[in-house]
Amino acid sequence: MKVLVVNAGSSSLKYQLIDMSNEEVIAKGNCECINMEGGKITHNYGDGKKYEEMCHFPSHTEAFEKLVEVLTTGEGAVIKDMSEIGAVGHRIVQGAEVFPKAVIVTDEVIQKIDDLQELAPVHNHPHALALWACKKVMPAEVPQVVVFDTAFHQTIPQKAFMYGMPYEVYEDFHVRKYGFHGTSHRFVSMKLGELLGGSLEGKSVVSCHLGNGSSITAIKDGKSVDTSMGFTPLDGIIMGTRSGAVDPSAVTYVQKKLGLTPDQMSDYLNKKSGFLGLSGKSSDNRAITAGVAEGDEKCKLVSEMLTYGIKKYIGSYAAAMNGLDAIIFTGGIGENAPEVRQAVCDDMDIFGIKIDPEANLIRGEIRKISTEDSKVQVWVIPTNEELLIARDTLAVAGLDKNA
Amino acid sequence: MKVLVVNAGSSSLKYQLIDMSNEEVIAKGNCECINMEGGKITHNYGDGKKYEEMCHFPSHTEAFEKLVEVLTTGEGAVIKDMSEIGAVGHRIVQGAEVFPKAVIVTDEVIQKIDDLQELAPVHNHPHALALWACKKVMPAEVPQVVVFDTAFHQTIPQKAFMYGMPYEVYEDFHVRKYGFHGTSHRFVSMKLGELLGGSLEGKSVVSCHLGNGSSITAIKDGKSVDTSMGFTPLDGIIMGTRSGAVDPSAVTYVQKKLGLTPDQMSDYLNKKSGFLGLSGKSSDNRAITAGVAEGDEKCKLVSEMLTYGIKKYIGSYAAAMNGLDAIIFTGGIGENAPEVRQAVCDDMDIFGIKIDPEANLIRGEIRKISTEDSKVQVWVIPTNEELLIARDTLAVAGLDKNA
Repeated sequence: MKVLVVNAGSSSLKYQLIDMSNEEVIAKGNCECINMEGGKITHNYGDGKKYEEMCHFPSHTEAFEKLVEVLTTGEGAVIKDMSEIGAVGHRIVQGAEVFPKAVIVTDEVIQKIDDLQELAPVHNHPHALALWACKKVMPAEVPQVVVFDTAFHQTIPQKAFMYGMPYEVYEDFHVRKYGFHGTSHRFVSMKLGELLGGSLEGKSVVSCHLGNGSSITAIKDGKSVDTSMGFTPLDGIIMGTRSGAVDPSAVTYVQKKLGLTPDQMSDYLNKKSGFLGLSGKSSDNRAITAGVAEGDEKCKLVSEMLTYGIKKYIGSYAAAMNGLDAIIFTGGIGENAPEVRQAVCDDMDIFGIKIDPEANLIRGEIRKISTEDSKVQVWVIPTNEELLIARDTLAVAGLDKNA
Repeated sequence: MKVLVVNAGSSSLKYQLIDMSNEEVIAKGNCECINMEGGKITHNYGDGKKYEEMCHFPSHTEAFEKLVEVLTTGEGAVIKDMSEIGAVGHRIVQGAEVFPKAVIVTDEVIQKIDDLQELAPVHNHPHALALWACKKVMPAEVPQVVVFDTAFHQTIPQKAFMYGMPYEVYEDFHVRKYGFHGTSHRFVSMKLGELLGGSLEGKSVVSCHLGNGSSITAIKDGKSVDTSMGFTPLDGIIMGTRSGAVDPSAVTYVQKKLGLTPDQMSDYLNKKSGFLGLSGKSSDNRAITAGVAEGDEKCKLVSEMLTYGIKKYIGSYAAAMNGLDAIIFTGGIGENAPEVRQAVCDDMDIFGIKIDPEANLIRGEIRKISTEDSKVQVWVIPTNEELLIARDTLAVAGLDKNA
């Protein structure tokens, strides 16, 4: 059984075709610049083979038509026709309380996803556009499933998801902590469960997804009980271009000083802040690390703020769960930045954390990086959201991976 | 040596006259409704004796004149004339980076305090008005000292006081974490030092000042290294009418939804949120506790959010300090709400915290409430900011408490 996984943005359409019998990626690619100049499809198939074509994509529909064409014809073809695809799984950022879990796509479901666009303006409307497009292009008999970034966090208790604002802000405007990166946190925590012998029952785990966007999740008995991102992906620790947590009064103060509208202020905090705004250099942690090596004081500050912020979340979630059995590092930074992991775990004797500096040099592979006598197991586990979306898609559609 | 301690607001002037030879309060009172209808002085002197008079206070100057009159003449008189007062100490909320410690009042100092009003609009301008008024009314030879709520937190390292916004927000607008309640955290931590045999060297302490406003401070080796309030007293845990921390995007989202200006949004978060906004009932923790007993679901939520938030700060600061030797509870709630202390310390086995439920029933008195075998000592220590202001005043003025 082959599953096509789709991750649509406002101007892009990323896809992976996965053979679920062995969970291997057959092909993956990206349609860029939808509804813009410079449209292009990049299609990777087989070992290092790559097909590129400049295209014009007036909408997501044309992008879907092109990916069907590239998957089935020409040098990059990996299937004969679309009937070989058993199901399509779509990544959706915001499911809010409407979608506590993955569901089969219907017209009503697409409409509800679009209705949530106010809560996730950058993501949900493009998701809906891609869903309508996919419906047009794909054979009607192929089941489609939507998998939500927020779903894993729907087990967070109310004491942890509410803000201290008037209750009607929650009731009328649906403002609460939703949390994001749920599919990633779920994937790596399930993998940890396997590594520890099958289950996270009775375990307290802190999962650190660190990338251009970062979130940290407290996982008790395999369920999310708290997470650092909030109503939107802006909250929590400092990120590439996002500020992370800020005194709410500082938000209104800076907004007034700069003469910005609420939307402009939100943009300022989402796109011009974080590593980029503080360092004045880059939103990329590799450039920050290089800056630290060169003695750049602002890069040093960014790097310290990042690891200090992660440390504090680990401590707070250890208190929230009354336990700390394992820490997972994943995401671009989590998987590939030994110096970040080392700095986070240094001086954490209070929890009995001991890192093996040799093991910690690993990049992009599964490895336990704590010592045998560390009270807390620390793991690097590369994430794979697409694979989990494909698995969920089969499960929700009731399909057999070997069919 | 007698010291007059002054705490001025925009419409009030609170005072205490303290005999520093035994650190006892000789008289204390409040001039209310300055520059408003309904002015009144309430003056408490001796055991339960109280003098009240309706007055008109066009400005802080008339309030100062009245308190001098009441201290020296009539039934409430406790001194013959103002020459008996050795020094005056003023509480100032915001000293920013300009005033890392208490200093003698000069015209330049008053001007600088007034210049900081943009950072603390509710407090610093009234403080300056009161300082000018006091200068007019008090004999010129009596030294006056300003003691800052922020000063104790000036030891917080940059990684903990910076926000993830562009660096120029710090440089140009002075937006950073300042922290507040510094005099209270310093008072109770110094008291703990005495109780533990003289010093907090080598100790990691979390001080929880819980009242209508609440802040939690990490104190390492007797110095503040992090605190929950931020640029303003809005940040941190949920408070009486303040929201505490909120996803910055939720601030701009709700502002837009409600059509508020930045100042109105700040007001909304400072005055209409917190216990009051969520419960729809009261900003007072006693009313919330009563609501919980009556089965009110929203009061239960508020109460859980409060204790959950405190728990998370304790955990995060234990990680930040790599240690947790003691927890202090102080402030109106901290001193008088055993149920809050119990809920915070329950299920904290990860730190080895054990509360003695009998001892925890204490209200408003110094007491260790942890068991003998608790790894973390937990103390209730009533705060006394006025006394510490008086002590600082003598120290800065170079005066002898027994003179």
